[in-house]
Amino acid sequence: MRIYIGLVHYPVYNKNYQRIASAITTLDLHDLARLAMTYHVKRFYVITPFEEQQRLARRVQTHWTKGFGAEYNRHRKEALELVEVVPSLDRAIKAITETEGEPPLLIATDASKRKMRSVSFEGARGIIRKRQAAILIFGTAWGLDEEVIASADYVLDPISGSGGYNHLSVRTAAAIILDRLARTPQ
Amino acid sequence: MRIYIGLVHYPVYNKNYQRIASAITTLDLHDLARLAMTYHVKRFYVITPFEEQQRLARRVQTHWTKGFGAEYNRHRKEALELVEVVPSLDRAIKAITETEGEPPLLIATDASKRKMRSVSFEGARGIIRKRQAAILIFGTAWGLDEEVIASADYVLDPISGSGGYNHLSVRTAAAIILDRLARTPQ
Repeated sequence: MRIYIGLVHYPVYNKNYQRIASAITTLDLHDLARLAMTYHVKRFYVITPFEEQQRLARRVQTHWTKGFGAEYNRHRKEALELVEVVPSLDRAIKAITETEGEPPLLIATDASKRKMRSVSFEGARGIIRKRQAAILIFGTAWGLDEEVIASADYVLDPISGSGGYNHLSVRTAAAIILDRLARTPQ
Repeated sequence: MRIYIGLVHYPVYNKNYQRIASAITTLDLHDLARLAMTYHVKRFYVITPFEEQQRLARRVQTHWTKGFGAEYNRHRKEALELVEVVPSLDRAIKAITETEGEPPLLIATDASKRKMRSVSFEGARGIIRKRQAAILIFGTAWGLDEEVIASADYVLDPISGSGGYNHLSVRTAAAIILDRLARTPQ
């Protein structure tokens, strides 16, 4: 698999559907890095345009990969090494293009079913298993800005559990999505 | 489905495999309550013997079900209403037995594969879909105490993603487990 993930802090919506930049939640970095390790994700991009927020994310990473944390918990070290802090989604795509020699497919995740370019879990799993390079992006706060959604090659269907409730945290949604798309058949 | 979940703060292990009681992480209450809503879990037991910790958990719940949070976010309200704070696993089992008219099966989750009473995801899914009342329990910190594991009817196989790394947070592990066991076939 040649799969990448991105956690987008800008542009996302707030509760009133205004475009904002959300703050880094350090727990999300840990949880998504550990998921990335579990599912052989090649790189986990933490996307925020604010330098202070970038510094915060890098400080967390350095603590666990080079500082006290690296000795304390090597499993955390391995996971946090997958993190790369970048100012924009474009920069993440550029970095992947350099590594892979071709631009990755952009697969956006969203809590609503889309009419255009929507892809089922089965469809997305097929794409990923064909070894197509792809980046799966997750929005923080109230979700990815429409402009980002519009730029995606595919928009993954929302998670349905066993009813209509669809209000998971980004951490747990990312866990379910990666498990459905990237786990090895058993 | 007649499925319940429990988040165990005692007895669990610390990093050195000593028996401890872990502190409540308020984010876990939110994440697991929202998962419980998504997968039609009947009740989410937060298990801690410490009164101060019980008060903290109840304060979070009250804020979101009756206080400011209830107005602010009704999806959160619905989810947090599933929470019940209890001092021990036995008390959770007793409450379920009263509701269901029979004791629930106790299914423990663990990061290692067990020789005794282990159950695959497929096996556990079968049990749950037969409408057998069951409680799935998740350990905080470094995992459930052996005594709790020994008292379980089944121990669920560990999550394998696509490799040997098996160090997820309890939030993301619970998400993956509920999705595998309790989602409606699509």
